[in-house]
Amino acid sequence: MIGQPRDDLYLNGEFMPLASGQISVQDRGFQFADGVYEVVRFKGSRFLWLDEHLARLERGLTALAIPGVGSRDRFTRVLPELVRRSGSGEGSIYLQVTRGPAPRDFSMPTSAVPTELAYVAPQTFFTWDQVLAGTTACLMEDIRWTRCDIKAICLTAAVLGKAVAAERGASEVIWVGPDRLVREGGSCNLFVVRGGEVWTHPADRHILAGVTRLRVLEIARESGVVVREEPVTAEELLVADEVFLSSTLRDLLPILRVDGRPIGRGQAGPVSLRLAERMRAVVDRELSADG
Amino acid sequence: MIGQPRDDLYLNGEFMPLASGQISVQDRGFQFADGVYEVVRFKGSRFLWLDEHLARLERGLTALAIPGVGSRDRFTRVLPELVRRSGSGEGSIYLQVTRGPAPRDFSMPTSAVPTELAYVAPQTFFTWDQVLAGTTACLMEDIRWTRCDIKAICLTAAVLGKAVAAERGASEVIWVGPDRLVREGGSCNLFVVRGGEVWTHPADRHILAGVTRLRVLEIARESGVVVREEPVTAEELLVADEVFLSSTLRDLLPILRVDGRPIGRGQAGPVSLRLAERMRAVVDRELSADG
Repeated sequence: MIGQPRDDLYLNGEFMPLASGQISVQDRGFQFADGVYEVVRFKGSRFLWLDEHLARLERGLTALAIPGVGSRDRFTRVLPELVRRSGSGEGSIYLQVTRGPAPRDFSMPTSAVPTELAYVAPQTFFTWDQVLAGTTACLMEDIRWTRCDIKAICLTAAVLGKAVAAERGASEVIWVGPDRLVREGGSCNLFVVRGGEVWTHPADRHILAGVTRLRVLEIARESGVVVREEPVTAEELLVADEVFLSSTLRDLLPILRVDGRPIGRGQAGPVSLRLAERMRAVVDRELSADG
Repeated sequence: MIGQPRDDLYLNGEFMPLASGQISVQDRGFQFADGVYEVVRFKGSRFLWLDEHLARLERGLTALAIPGVGSRDRFTRVLPELVRRSGSGEGSIYLQVTRGPAPRDFSMPTSAVPTELAYVAPQTFFTWDQVLAGTTACLMEDIRWTRCDIKAICLTAAVLGKAVAAERGASEVIWVGPDRLVREGGSCNLFVVRGGEVWTHPADRHILAGVTRLRVLEIARESGVVVREEPVTAEELLVADEVFLSSTLRDLLPILRVDGRPIGRGQAGPVSLRLAERMRAVVDRELSADG
């Protein structure tokens, strides 16, 4: 790297280069996955749906009874400063809060001070050509815990799922419940288009209530597309007209093949593209300086 | 603390005081719970069933495709030195191996170097009076992932379970599957005595194949007690004659109340006590200098 390393990490009240960021081996985030995280997009000094991400972070802390008093306000104050110090024009911010270091015991300690961090990952986002090119996925039995509504750092299953997808030549995994109902993707929500209607799993304990997912539902309704928050089976997904995913880093992306079989004609379909186009307009407006 | 802090931590090839042990905020153990752990008892220079713990650690690394080449041999070499440096006469050692630090991505990195650590927790173990006093538990719907056979650090559910138990005035949680079948405890295996026979969940993906669990089964068989590796329902557990748990740190411990209701007569029962007595003899023999 040329020049001084930039301060692209905020850790417990201080700014520093990411490579300097260290935590105790006794941090409960390291020993018990006892924490939550968020990923937020930014461009210049604008953040995409930051309030909603921080509200979900706060809900996660409450669900885990982590006393993250003031985390939300601190991040609101700190993130613009962090982006400025990082010198990055566009990218994502990874936020994590854990219960903090404590002598190892499954029971929640009474005196631990939470570990708070955020760091900047400079990156560019999908071009329209990449949206048209879509992505691929494979079906896999959901091995995750049954509190996927909490965006916790217990992601071992997600790591295994992504590895299985890679082995099968796919980019994403689609979790299927024991009832054969499709839940969501490895790190995204999932939508199925059948007869012009958009189907997606309801926001219960088996999926994360994605911030981008909610925008997809809003945009679909605004576009006059009927939305059903009802699950479909894996078999119904395979014969659907279109399938697409949503996530913070991928917006809305068509899935063109599942388990090696084309969905519909194996091309980005009309409903996916119409919603993806609107989504890009909404994101661009949010991230523009005068938005 | 009086005097020099002892080196009670081994971390990536070096010995140091536990309080000095730090890892990168980008360690995948911290961001993805991408790692495994073990807890091993020791006394003097003797370790309890160390080979079995390290064999399970190695199986876990293989299951997660973490390239922990040599971890097992290193720990075998390092642990006696660590105990010596710690100055502790008796206690447990916590071992953890993660995939190591890497830029954040769900996909497994190809070049990460695993993080290996072990540290000493001095402690004394249960007296016979404490065995007689037993413990308490509560039933809870199993919210964990379905690969509990892997001793991974994705323990968020276990932390929540222990907190629910504490709220309900119990010491341990008992995980119950959607089929009402009893699986195991929050950090222990579970045994139910019915008509003189010992029942326990088979070692499938819903429980950890505990090292102490295996000893319980061996001891029961040696004692002429019929063992059934078959699950019982929560309702059957509540009307059982005896219930007990097994774990590295608690050996074999009677559970006298579940959900506030006494099991049997609410006292440590004859089968539990007979097996607990034998277990203590076996453990003492293993941990004695001339064992």
